[in-house]
Amino acid sequence: MPDRRAHLTDAAIVTLARSGMRGLTHRAVDREAGLPEGSTSYYFRTREALLQATLERLAELSTADIEATPPTDLDAIAGLLHRWLTDGRDRMLARFELTLESTRRPELREVLLAAGASFRAAATQLLTEAGVPDARRRAENLVACIDGLLFDQIAEAGPVRSADDLRDALIPLFATAFAAQ
Amino acid sequence: MPDRRAHLTDAAIVTLARSGMRGLTHRAVDREAGLPEGSTSYYFRTREALLQATLERLAELSTADIEATPPTDLDAIAGLLHRWLTDGRDRMLARFELTLESTRRPELREVLLAAGASFRAAATQLLTEAGVPDARRRAENLVACIDGLLFDQIAEAGPVRSADDLRDALIPLFATAFAAQ
Repeated sequence: MPDRRAHLTDAAIVTLARSGMRGLTHRAVDREAGLPEGSTSYYFRTREALLQATLERLAELSTADIEATPPTDLDAIAGLLHRWLTDGRDRMLARFELTLESTRRPELREVLLAAGASFRAAATQLLTEAGVPDARRRAENLVACIDGLLFDQIAEAGPVRSADDLRDALIPLFATAFAAQ
Repeated sequence: MPDRRAHLTDAAIVTLARSGMRGLTHRAVDREAGLPEGSTSYYFRTREALLQATLERLAELSTADIEATPPTDLDAIAGLLHRWLTDGRDRMLARFELTLESTRRPELREVLLAAGASFRAAATQLLTEAGVPDARRRAENLVACIDGLLFDQIAEAGPVRSADDLRDALIPLFATAFAAQ
């Protein structure tokens, strides 16, 4: 994503995390980005365009994180989840906000599905290569459970999990996904 | 909850599901409830009061559903999750919206924590009675994974799971929670 658009969508992520969908306006993003009023509107004319670009930016950042993580190294995966829950907390909050908003906006849903499909396909491929039965369904359940651990902690509804706690939670989930039967 | 307050908060749930936090106003709830303008403001003077009462209503409805479900009958639990994802979809959407909003509103967070604590305590007690080690942490991870399956489907990000699919996803999660070691 070009620099100026990345800067503005990063400001939209922070705005969404702090103020929710109700607080997300073009002017609030201008202020968060430290740019003159009208800057966000210049690059993203409509609210829809701003929301889509923000979701695309989130997918771009997550893809880079995931590609840098060995897919069966549970310590590395737990470490990534822990970073997402601490330094990356705004990104996770913004992603969940946009996920709920996508139930009301078909164009946003298309972006979400495309991003999600690539993660799910990668997990399915990994399980297929491991020769397990029903790889696709197992991959989908694994992704849903990992997202549940993230949501639980972002929402502060459950316990605060350390990277070690997250790895301990991942062990049985991966054992289930990779089980021979 | 008294009838009129229940009627208004049920209308707030539908409004939240259809229009999000941005569309939730006292007047929108009046319209959804089919009541004269000012009705919602009369019962819930502030936005905060309306949000709190709506979350309390959601907790009341979920508690009744859960108390009517045998806690180790996976068919019954899968059936309940499936009803929440179909007939109860608005309730789930509203709950997730309010969960994210609670990260920005301490008073709302207290209501959420109280409701969540009672579900987590019940799950912990069940696992403690089964004599498994580390019952509390296992219960918390189980709750987070089940919520992940619900969020995944509410968000329409993953596959549409039937009640049978949900039961198949629950089997290894419960096996992990109840494992002797």
